[in-house]
Formats: sequence, structure tokens, C-alpha cells
Amino acid sequence: MTTDPRRVEVLLEALPYIREFRGKTVVIKYGGAAMERADLKEPFALDVILLRFVGIRPVIVHGGGPQIGALMKRLGKEPRFVGGMRVTDEETVEIVEMVLVGKINKAIVGLINHLGGKAVGLSGKDAGLLRARRRPHRLPTGEEVDIGLVGEIEAVNTEPIRLLEDAGFVPVIAPVGVGAGGETYNINADLVAGEIAAALGAEKLIHLTDVQGILDSEARLISTLNRKEAERLMSAAVIEGGMLPKIESSLRALESGTSKAHIIDGRVPHAILLELFTREGIGTEIVL
Amino acid sequence: MTTDPRRVEVLLEALPYIREFRGKTVVIKYGGAAMERADLKEPFALDVILLRFVGIRPVIVHGGGPQIGALMKRLGKEPRFVGGMRVTDEETVEIVEMVLVGKINKAIVGLINHLGGKAVGLSGKDAGLLRARRRPHRLPTGEEVDIGLVGEIEAVNTEPIRLLEDAGFVPVIAPVGVGAGGETYNINADLVAGEIAAALGAEKLIHLTDVQGILDSEARLISTLNRKEAERLMSAAVIEGGMLPKIESSLRALESGTSKAHIIDGRVPHAILLELFTREGIGTEIVL
Amino acid sequence: MTTDPRRVEVLLEALPYIREFRGKTVVIKYGGAAMERADLKEPFALDVILLRFVGIRPVIVHGGGPQIGALMKRLGKEPRFVGGMRVTDEETVEIVEMVLVGKINKAIVGLINHLGGKAVGLSGKDAGLLRARRRPHRLPTGEEVDIGLVGEIEAVNTEPIRLLEDAGFVPVIAPVGVGAGGETYNINADLVAGEIAAALGAEKLIHLTDVQGILDSEARLISTLNRKEAERLMSAAVIEGGMLPKIESSLRALESGTSKAHIIDGRVPHAILLELFTREGIGTEIVL
Amino acid sequence: MTTDPRRVEVLLEALPYIREFRGKTVVIKYGGAAMERADLKEPFALDVILLRFVGIRPVIVHGGGPQIGALMKRLGKEPRFVGGMRVTDEETVEIVEMVLVGKINKAIVGLINHLGGKAVGLSGKDAGLLRARRRPHRLPTGEEVDIGLVGEIEAVNTEPIRLLEDAGFVPVIAPVGVGAGGETYNINADLVAGEIAAALGAEKLIHLTDVQGILDSEARLISTLNRKEAERLMSAAVIEGGMLPKIESSLRALESGTSKAHIIDGRVPHAILLELFTREGIGTEIVL
Amino acid sequence: MTTDPRRVEVLLEALPYIREFRGKTVVIKYGGAAMERADLKEPFALDVILLRFVGIRPVIVHGGGPQIGALMKRLGKEPRFVGGMRVTDEETVEIVEMVLVGKINKAIVGLINHLGGKAVGLSGKDAGLLRARRRPHRLPTGEEVDIGLVGEIEAVNTEPIRLLEDAGFVPVIAPVGVGAGGETYNINADLVAGEIAAALGAEKLIHLTDVQGILDSEARLISTLNRKEAERLMSAAVIEGGMLPKIESSLRALESGTSKAHIIDGRVPHAILLELFTREGIGTEIVL
Amino acid sequence: MTTDPRRVEVLLEALPYIREFRGKTVVIKYGGAAMERADLKEPFALDVILLRFVGIRPVIVHGGGPQIGALMKRLGKEPRFVGGMRVTDEETVEIVEMVLVGKINKAIVGLINHLGGKAVGLSGKDAGLLRARRRPHRLPTGEEVDIGLVGEIEAVNTEPIRLLEDAGFVPVIAPVGVGAGGETYNINADLVAGEIAAALGAEKLIHLTDVQGILDSEARLISTLNRKEAERLMSAAVIEGGMLPKIESSLRALESGTSKAHIIDGRVPHAILLELFTREGIGTEIVL
Repeated sequence: MTTDPRRVEVLLEALPYIREFRGKTVVIKYGGAAMERADLKEPFALDVILLRFVGIRPVIVHGGGPQIGALMKRLGKEPRFVGGMRVTDEETVEIVEMVLVGKINKAIVGLINHLGGKAVGLSGKDAGLLRARRRPHRLPTGEEVDIGLVGEIEAVNTEPIRLLEDAGFVPVIAPVGVGAGGETYNINADLVAGEIAAALGAEKLIHLTDVQGILDSEARLISTLNRKEAERLMSAAVIEGGMLPKIESSLRALESGTSKAHIIDGRVPHAILLELFTREGIGTEIVL
Repeated sequence: MTTDPRRVEVLLEALPYIREFRGKTVVIKYGGAAMERADLKEPFALDVILLRFVGIRPVIVHGGGPQIGALMKRLGKEPRFVGGMRVTDEETVEIVEMVLVGKINKAIVGLINHLGGKAVGLSGKDAGLLRARRRPHRLPTGEEVDIGLVGEIEAVNTEPIRLLEDAGFVPVIAPVGVGAGGETYNINADLVAGEIAAALGAEKLIHLTDVQGILDSEARLISTLNRKEAERLMSAAVIEGGMLPKIESSLRALESGTSKAHIIDGRVPHAILLELFTREGIGTEIVL
Repeated sequence: MTTDPRRVEVLLEALPYIREFRGKTVVIKYGGAAMERADLKEPFALDVILLRFVGIRPVIVHGGGPQIGALMKRLGKEPRFVGGMRVTDEETVEIVEMVLVGKINKAIVGLINHLGGKAVGLSGKDAGLLRARRRPHRLPTGEEVDIGLVGEIEAVNTEPIRLLEDAGFVPVIAPVGVGAGGETYNINADLVAGEIAAALGAEKLIHLTDVQGILDSEARLISTLNRKEAERLMSAAVIEGGMLPKIESSLRALESGTSKAHIIDGRVPHAILLELFTREGIGTEIVL
Repeated sequence: MTTDPRRVEVLLEALPYIREFRGKTVVIKYGGAAMERADLKEPFALDVILLRFVGIRPVIVHGGGPQIGALMKRLGKEPRFVGGMRVTDEETVEIVEMVLVGKINKAIVGLINHLGGKAVGLSGKDAGLLRARRRPHRLPTGEEVDIGLVGEIEAVNTEPIRLLEDAGFVPVIAPVGVGAGGETYNINADLVAGEIAAALGAEKLIHLTDVQGILDSEARLISTLNRKEAERLMSAAVIEGGMLPKIESSLRALESGTSKAHIIDGRVPHAILLELFTREGIGTEIVL
Repeated sequence: MTTDPRRVEVLLEALPYIREFRGKTVVIKYGGAAMERADLKEPFALDVILLRFVGIRPVIVHGGGPQIGALMKRLGKEPRFVGGMRVTDEETVEIVEMVLVGKINKAIVGLINHLGGKAVGLSGKDAGLLRARRRPHRLPTGEEVDIGLVGEIEAVNTEPIRLLEDAGFVPVIAPVGVGAGGETYNINADLVAGEIAAALGAEKLIHLTDVQGILDSEARLISTLNRKEAERLMSAAVIEGGMLPKIESSLRALESGTSKAHIIDGRVPHAILLELFTREGIGTEIVL
Repeated sequence: MTTDPRRVEVLLEALPYIREFRGKTVVIKYGGAAMERADLKEPFALDVILLRFVGIRPVIVHGGGPQIGALMKRLGKEPRFVGGMRVTDEETVEIVEMVLVGKINKAIVGLINHLGGKAVGLSGKDAGLLRARRRPHRLPTGEEVDIGLVGEIEAVNTEPIRLLEDAGFVPVIAPVGVGAGGETYNINADLVAGEIAAALGAEKLIHLTDVQGILDSEARLISTLNRKEAERLMSAAVIEGGMLPKIESSLRALESGTSKAHIIDGRVPHAILLELFTREGIGTEIVL
């Protein structure tokens, strides 16, 4: 900061937002460009550090990325399909776990700590954080198919998250679950973020995406979207693909007491600060 | 904040300073223009609130001001002099106490709270915070004269300050002391600030003044001033008048473990944030 | 104490009362002769100290006194009236605040500390303790008149009181409130005491007055007075004037969980100890 | 208490003493008439309760009494002597333990609780409170004789005492020790009191006796007695018999940090309150 | 342990039971052979110590035994009978208290501590732990007779038990109660155990007896017995005598939230470990 | 456990060892057969769980294993050598991290939790746990060669370990360090275990190996080995290869206050319990 007093005003404008969110938990689903583009990683990490410094409690849930596919390809792992769905066999889930937990998670944790924060990584196996079971998969024909070790969450053990939060750390969570028999599950990170926000009673859930937000049929940004309208847009296939679990996750969190859920544009540097510290906010807010 | 991402950078530039001062106490001597000019009061209060929000612990010591003289005049209180010095008799000290504690202190506390902070006022009588005795006064002739109830600090009871700090409040302290016999003393606020910084082992002591800092004999700002040079300038009467207790106060705090003492220009809006969150700092730093 | 064993008995007679009130809060409205007569001040302060020493938690709310009028007179402040009511303009409320907070409050705090207690003064502005609004005033004709900055309590922030109580201090509270716009209000101290007792869920509320208690139409002391009978006596103007807010305050506290409310004779030295440590009690007890 | 205000003064005279001893531990050796005379038991228990109520922490160590001899006689237990000394064999120590722990201790605990206090009895076996070994006994001829299970203290485990004190209880301790092999020892209660005062770093040690204090060779009360003079009086046999362990115990405590040790007249009702709450004190103070 | 790895398995088999009972309270009624036979005392004490070491919270309630009768006989105390019932007069209750509290309790506490545990004895008089009243006694004719100081429990003050448990101690409780007038009561230890389990909301209540468990009319062990069947067996006099209060005690605890109540064979060494750490358990389980 | 009382004795024999190590930290270097052989994994996990259940605080540091080489081979990663040493380039350290943190660590954590424990994995990047720098490598010729990202520990941040231990978790640590520039280092797991034991002031450090212990030149087990003798055996190349860092690690821990360091045979099931709960212990104890 130079000694330009006008710049001080910027700090002060953040005051009402800091007051609103102090001591509250904000779950951030981190993925897409914000996680992959070199120029966006550091702004993300700085946002997280700043939140913690002003007394807000960020919890990060990250997804996977092209690194999983790249490693599978290098290992000559042939994709198998059942009814058009990719099957996650044991070897695949092992690769997924190695990349998510041993590479992506550690890179995020390392960057936050390197820039001055205090982050600790958690996998869903740590302290039985994410208890999972096989997620049933049904073909459009109604037939149920076995696509392997793709899980859905049965229970979240918030104890290790609370422990780290209370001690001033930022928990960074990889979306790997553990089954009743000790088996490993790959779980959709959007859904993990929603379940964790629900279990923590988080104040806010923020999804970082690679689009501006949710667009209507004429490609205009929808600033607030309620459940009914969301369902209409989903049946009309205006909302589809990767946006579906983000909607599901947001509604899940809202139903369990989270106050606000947002789908925002992670390609904008410092999108999190802009969302939290701006009156209008950015992207699309989901409401019940 | 608008959604201008460049503005976010300003917030982030504050990070290293926040990290440095988190959890530490900063004693601020508040007085002069910053306290009297309507346009400077709110920036001061906002600075204090922001410090607290980012985990820094400000403690305010305020001075008096023209309001004391104004009330004395309205009450027809005739100033008495002994050996050229104004005498503080019992009636005077009562008026001083009413204005300091019942008017100025409450206005500061009220403003901070009104803007969203959590301040509590303290007089040196509360919990025996400032135990004082008569400050001896010697004429240039060497003769000692009795100028009445002007005190100097014997002991600081930090218990109520710590209690309020730990509970998230900003203590705002009026420079009134109490003697062994229960009598009231008017004490120089600069010296009170130094004694409190010393007793608390504060990280920083900041004096807000109506000048740019300490100037040398050619009226250039001195950015760092050590004790020896300060003594030279004082004997040469380059430093004189109201600046003398600020120097004395700063040296007192530094000797007791305070890391840094500053004399800065309170006429600059947000001078405190600028001092704390700028690499170069502003004004004059006093060193041992 | 001499070594006269009969005197020890006196100490022991206090045991059952100490047991009954240990750890409980007793709100004391302090005013009138007990606050103004030189010979009654010290007995009051000693009573308060003793309560605290035996584990009872006194909270003092004090009123104003002749000092306010005296200062206004010296300042040549002309009283204004609307519909027969004295108007409290901004200048008046400033004088009231200076005297209440800067003079009376500090004298009480100073005396308790001087005699060995641990008191801290609070104004309603400290930590937003007393949030107030304009008290509507209606003439007997039903016409509403604006009598200025006379307030009534909207909310009590008990946090600073609890903080001080838990740390072993005696909070001493001046009846000054703060409005939503930051403006200062003069509030009837009897009503403040009732609201504070209600907010704290105090065990007891004690009003020190300059009469023996509440007298019936034949001037005999009423030892217990219920709401219905109180209302009858008020409409019959047997109870009137300054006694009205004491009744209102007592009923307010009782409705919010305070166990007992008393109106006692502050002209009796150590009236508080006598009330608390006597089976019959003294003065009038108000019941629902 | 009647409403006689003069009686209130008695309460207030206790204030400075309460302030001095608040939060501090006072070890009281309870025995003799104060424990045996029906009219003195209740005053003793009330004194203890009052101390606790005003924040002082009494710890009681009691002795035995005629009940031990009475039971031994009824059981037809023949006293055995070696070199003129009564031998404490296993059967004897069992009887001693039953009476001390099962009868006297319980009677004291029961009385304090019945009168409104919170007492818990401890034997030296509880939590290994009093670790003991055989006390060597030497005849005047220098020959060492075995008088059986008479112990001396090796170590005090203050943990259970602190636990009870901190939770607001009055610990009442029977002078029974336990050896390294689990065997039971009868220990002189005066010496136990001194060791416990030493281990706790008690503020005061008070011995209740059946005499006025220590008398000089002309039977005048000595108000302060130092070690050197005590030794002189012991070699002159002016101090002898049961007074010897009280002197030893007092010196032991004083050497370990206890501030004051007193030998007072337990036949005076409320002797403890008189000692603690009187400027002159009563009986004899032992000093180093 | 030798280095035989098969022996390690034994330790590990205990794991699921340790997990189940960690942090939970188990009330053990200790009596009969387990308390009287020299070869069974140490196994009992070791079981208790092990429970505490693995995080389970044992609370011991012990009974009397032949020592009471023996002492009464030695003291030439003639038993008196009213309507065929032994009368407990004041002298008798004094002897009972001495033996229970001063001998049996101390022997148990001493043994546990000697073997490395941390036990503290409590009588029902300590901290008013067991508030009792006269237990009404009715002859088969329906006539009520006064059999003296035999009590039943009115209220249990769990505070001292919790205090000791939380600090890592094993409370060992003698079944002596105290009446409203301070009088001492002898109470059936089985019933005391049930009331204490009920008051603590203990997880388990275990009665150590001198039989294999409850036998049916053909002398076969009943492994689970419900209330209805118990009542049938009691009216058929299949269950009678000393087993009756054990049944009553078990049902009382179960009704107040205790999960399981057991009557097991205390003649088997380490019966407690076997009951707690065995899938089948031993003896008879009582259910509602 | 069957109801065979002799088996209970085994539990009780563990008592003195439990008492000795309760509340103390035991660092276990986990690797070799114990980590790789299917039949040894579960006994290891059960040992760790049992330790925690009886109040001992295990901290696991694991090594790598054949999985690293296997993945490198599958990825066609050609080993490079400088001066005969394998070079760890960036791609290699990435693979190492993925396998250590994302596979081995998670398998250990998962198994402990699956069997009923509470484990949380940590990498040296979490909370900056292991701050590392490049480990200098010198050829026998004295020439220094750059073998890449092989690190040595500069500092251990014990905060996250303590946090997890205090909350009842077992920390499981992967030997990956982070440099000042954020770069990743592969560190020898034996040395990591020694540094962590040193930083924690652990009571014990246990290395699980694939040999019986340290053997002398005639292949006999050395039960205690001091530094001097170790140095002799190292220069004589009796101790060499993978045993060298275990010796270095043990001495490092012992110098920093660890009481005991052991090198034991991990091929023996339940080697940890045998070491901790056996008087003679197993394997070799290293002493200063």
C-alpha cells in the first residue's frame, strides 16, 4: 500500500462484510480454471488467507482435474464402459486417490502455506471424515448399472474439520470417501462440498466454476435462481452436465441451514473476495 | 467495493502487516486535530474498528482539548498562577474530569460503537487503573512550586484493560489518575499513553499530532530519531513545548519493551492505517 | 472486632443469608440521601464491598442529583418548558452526561475502590450497554409533546456487565442511553435499574429512597405490596411522583424473573446489609 | 441480625481481614476441648463454614481423643509397654483407625454439612495422601526401641486436598498414614497439620489447644515466641509434653513458607474467627 | 508378559469392549467372598485399576461383613429384636459406621492404591452424598415396627463422585446415610449401589455375589431375567433373602437409564474383567 | 476372550507398562515387512489402537516401499545417476509424493480407522510440518554432487501433531518436506522419525525393521548399543546400509530428550506391544 489515503478507503469498505461473516464458516468448492490456470492459483490462495485473517473460517473442497486423466493415460489404463458410463474399478480409484490426495491436495495446501496461511489437507479417510457407499446409477432406460467405486456420502464426521478450524487452520478436503468395508470411493466434489456445508451448518457455500454463473435460455446471467425455476431449467436441459451436481449440492446445503449458496466465475481473479465483499455479489445465487 | 478486481489487490497488500501485528497491542494517543476536526473523527474510528477486526488490539488514550477551557470560561473560573504556572485546584480538576470522562471519552466510545465497533471507556479511577501522585514542578530557578492536582503515574493496573481486550473490546482511556488518598489528578495524556504501553508491553505506541512529525533545525522531517539526537535537539530547543512529553513517553515505552514508537500526523485521514500498513510508515519513529 | 465472642455471633447470623445469595446478582438503585449525604456514602460503599467479598454480585445503577441543576444554573442554562414539562435539549443532555458520567459515577467508583473494593464505571454508551429511544410523553389532555432527549430503554447489552461481574468487579452504571443515530438520552435511573435487573435475571432489585418505604393512605408502612394494590394506590394518588417509576421498575424486573424487589430507606446507614441479612427485611417488598 | 445498624458495623470490621485471607489456605489442627465439649463443636463448625463463605480455604486436621482409649478398654485390649513406651501393635492401630476415620472424622464432617457447609473427610490412605514410615523412638538412655506402628510423614500428596478446595469443599483429614508396604500408621495429628501446611504452602497454621497459649516460667502468656526462645524454654522444660509437637509442627510449616503459625485457646468459643479477624490476635504466635 | 505373541492376542481381544465402555461409569457392588477371601481381594483391586487405566470409570460401593458382627460381639452388644427383626439402635449404628468407614472402606482404598491405582473413600456423610430417612418396616401381619436407624435413600449428591471421577480417582463408597437431623443410617449396600447407578446414569451396574447368578427352580443359571419373570420367581420364593435387594437395586438403576445390570459370581477371580470383556458375559443379566 | 480366568492375567501383566507410558508420546517408524506383508498390517494397526486406548500417544512415521519403484517403472521413468547416486528430479519427487501421501499414508490411516481407531494423515506440507532443505551429498572422493530433491529437516512444526494427539487422534506422517521456496523434498523416513521424536520430546522412538535388531560381527543380537560402540561398528562396516539412518535417527532423538530408542523386528506380529509391554523388550536398544 502506498501512502495514498484513497486506497485506505478500500480497506474500510470491507468492514461491513467482515463484520457479517466473522466467525462463520464458508465452504468453497475449488476447481476448474481457478485451480488449473497458473495465474489464478495465487489469487485464490491469497483470498483464502485473507478470509482467515479477518476471522472468517474458509473450508476448501477441491475437485480433480486433467491430471487424473493424464496419469491414467500414461499408465496405459484403458477406460471401460457399462451402458455408456465409465466404470471406476479398483485400479482407477487408486489412481484417482493418488492424484487427488497426493498431488492436487498437497499443491493447494503447499501454496496456501507458502503464501503465509495455515492449511492442513484432509482426505475423506482421515478420521473417517467422509463415510460413503456405492452411488446407484440408473440408465435412461431405468436399468441400474454397476459403474464401480463411485460413491455418495452417507455421513460426514465434522470433528476433524472443527478441530482444525478452531485451531486457526484452513482445512483442504479431497473428495475421497471410505466405505463400511474400508473400500475407497471417488465422490463428486460438488456434492461433497454441499454435504460438508450441510454438516457444518456453514454460513455460505461457494462454487467456483468456469462460467459466469447460470444462464437462462437466452444466455443471460440469472442472478437469483430458486428451486422451482432450477427444476424447470433442468428439465428443459438449459441447465445440464456439470452444472447439475452444483445445483443439487447448493439445494442440499440450503435445506440444512446454510444461509446462502453461490455459483460464481472462478476465472475472475479474487472471485471469492469479490463475492463476499461486494453488495451485489457476482454470479448466481441459489435459493430454496 | 465495486467488482473492480484491482481494488481487491489493496486488501491483499495489507496481508503481511496484518500477519505481523495480529494479536498484538497498539497503544494510540488520540488528540489534536484528529479528535477535534469533524472530518477526521470518523476516519479515526474506522481505523480503530478495522484494526480490531483483523485481530490487532488497539488501546486508545485520549487527551483533553478546547472543551475544557471553554467550560472553565463559561463557569467563570479564574485561572490562578504560581511562579508563572497555571494552578490546578480542586474545582479545576473536577471540571477537567467531567469534560474528559463525561464528554470527550463518551463521544469517542459512542462514535466507535455507532460505526460498528465495540468500545468501552475507562477512567484512571476505574479499577484503580491509574494510580498517581503529585508531579513535582520546579521553576527554572530551581525552586519547587505547588501547582496543585497535576499528577504523574505511580502504577498502572492493567487488569481491566486486559479483560476488555481479551473480550474483544477497544479500551478508551481518559487521563485521570487517582491518589493514595482518593484524590483526583489531571495527568498529561502523552505520558499516560507511554506508561500504559510500557505496562502492557505493547507492540507499538503511536502519537497522533498536528504536525508532520519531528522536524530538524531546517524544518525537514526526521524519519528516525534516537535518544541521543533527541536530547541534543531538546537542549537546542529545536524540539520543545508539547513535543517534549511525546518524546519522553516514547522513550519510556521503548525502555519497557515496546518495539516501536511513532509520532505521526493526525491531520492525514486514516493516519493509523497508513502507519501500520505501509512499508515506509509515516512521520517520525523514535528509537532508543 | 474486639475479642468479645458475643460479637462473633453477629458474623455468624449472616451465614444463612450469605448462603442464599452467593453467586447471585443484586441490582441496587443508588440515589437520594444515601448518595448525597456525606455520612451515608461510606456505609453504602462498605456494604457493596462486603457483598462482593461474601460472593454476592452487586450491580449499581445511580441517579443524578442536585449537582446537575447546580451546574446548569452556573452555566446560565435557562430551563424551557412545553406543556408544563421541562425540555431536555442537546445542551442539557450534554451537561447531564458530564455530571452523571464524569462526576457522580466517578465519585462512586472512586470511593468503592478507595475503601478496598474493585469497581468499574459504565455509561450506557460503553459497549452499547443501554440502547434507547425517545420516550413518548403525553399531556393529561392526551396531547403528545416533544420534551426532547429523554429516553426509554429499547435493549440492554449485558455482555460488559457479565464480563466485569465474572472478573470480580462491581459495575457502576450511569443512566445515559444511546440512540440508533448515536444520540445521547437521559433516562430515568429507576427504570434503568429495573431493565438491567430484568436483562440480567437478577435475584433482587433494591431501590434506595428517602422514605421509609411505601406508605398507605394513613401513612403506615406497607411491608408487602402487590401489583393490584399498587395500581389502586396509584390511581388514588397515594403513590405518586418519584415513587411511580420505582413501582414500574420493580414490576418490570419481577415479570422478567427477578425474585424480589424492594423499596427501602436509604437514610438508614447500611440499609443494604440490613435488607439482605435480616429475616424481616426493611421497607416495602413489591410482588406481582 | 436485628435491624440494629450498630450490629452491621461488626460485619464491616471483618472486611480488612477477609481481604487479607481471601483465596488463601488456613490449616487448622482441631482437637482437645473444642472437639470434645458439646458446647464448642457447633461454634467451631460455624467458624469453618463462615471462612469458606468469605472465600478463605480452611483445611482441618483432627486428632483422636478419649474415644480411642474407651474403645480399647471395652475391647479388653491390654496396653503393652517397651522401655516405658506404649506399643502400637496392629490391633491397636486398627482400633485407632476405626475411631479416627469411622467415628471422629465422620462426626466432624457430618456436623459441618448439617450446619450448611460442604465438608469431605479424608484419611491419609485416600489417594495416598499421607505416605508414612515408622517413627524412630529413642529412650533417654539413647537406646532405640520399637514401639510399633507409630509413623512419621515421608510425603504429602496434596492433589486430593487441592481438588476438594478448588471445588469449594472443606477437607477434614484424619491423621492416619500408609507405609510403603501398605501398612497403617498412627501419626501425631499436630505433626500432620504442620506437614500439610508445609506441603500446601498454607498462609496460616492454627493449633487449637486447651490452654491460653504458651506460658513463660511465671505462667504469663507469651504473645510471640521465636525459635531460639522456644528451644530455651524446651530445654528448661517450661514447654513440655503435648506442647512439644505443636512447636515442632509450627516451625516446620514456617520453614516451608507458611506465613504465620498460632497456638490458641480452643476453649474460647469461635476462637478461630477471633484469631483471624482480630488485630491483636489471641494466644501465642510462633515465629522463626 | 513373555514375548509369546499369542499372549498379545489376549490384549487385543479386549479392544472392542474397551471401546464400548471408555468414558462410561460402571458401578460395582463389592461384597461377599470377593471382599472377604484373601485370595480374591487383589484380583478385584487389579480389575478396578485396569478399568480406570483403559478409560472406564469404576465406582465402588462396598457392603459390610462379618467384621461388624465380630466387633459387636467383642463389645458385648446384645442384639435386640422387635417382631423378629434386629433393631439398629444408636450404639449399633455407631459400630457399623466405624467398621464400614474406618476399617472396610480404608482397607479397599488402601489396597487399590498400594497396587498402583488412585482411590478415595467416601461415606454417605461426605458432602451429604447419601441423604437418607428411616426405612419403614412392616411385619407380615401388616403391622409397622420400628427397627431403628435402618435407612433408605432420599437423594444422592453426585457432585463429589463426579469430582473424583473427573480427576482420575476411583470413588469407594461406604453405605452410610445421613438424615435431615444429622443422624446416621445404616443402609443396605445393594440398594445404595442401585441408587448411585441411577443418580449417575451409569452405563452398568454389577453386583458381586457368592453364587453363580440367579438360579431357576431347578437350580439352573438364568442368563437373562426380566422384571415380570423376576416377580414371579420372588412370589414363588425361588428368589429370596439377600438376592431380593439385588433385584430391586438392578431394576431401580435400569429404570433410571442404566443400560445393563448384572448379578455375577464374585468367587471367580477377576469376575469383573470377565463380565466386561467377554461377549457372553457371566452370571445373570437383569432387564426391564 | 473366553471366560478362562488365566487369560485375564495377561491383561493385568500389562498394567505396570501402561502406567509407565500413559500420557506419553511414542514415535514409531513404520516400514518394511510390517507395512508390506498382508498378515502383518492388521496386527500393527491393532497395536496402535490399543496404545491409544490405554492412554499412550502413538505417532506414526511411515516410509515408502516397492510401490514407488513400481509406479516409476510403469510410468517409464528412467532412473538417472550422478556419481553413482540416483537423482531425484522434479518428476520423481512428484511420483514419490503421490505414492507416499496419496496411497501408503491413506492405506495406513484407512486401516487404523477401519479397525476402530482414530487416525489422521499428515504430509510434511500440512501446516508446514516438515520444513526441509537440500541434503548435501558428498561422494567418497569428497566431491559434492547434486542428487536433486532429497531433503533434510530444518525445522519441525509440532503444532498440528499436538493438536491431533490432544484430541485423541493418531497422527500418521508421510516423510515429505517443503522447502523455503515451496519445493517438495523426499526425506529419509528414519531421519524424519528421529527429528519428530526430538521435536516432540517423545518418551520412546521405535524403528520397525526386517531384521532381529543390530547384530555384532558374529551375527549375534546386541541388546544394548551405545554411541561409541555404534561408531566402531559403523566404521568396521558391521553396521551399514539402511541401518545407518536408524542409528543416526535414534541418537538424534536421544540427544534431544527422548528416553529410549529401539530397533526391533517388525516381522514379529505385534512387535510394538511386545516391546512396550515386556520387561526385557525385544531387539536392540540404542543408548547415548
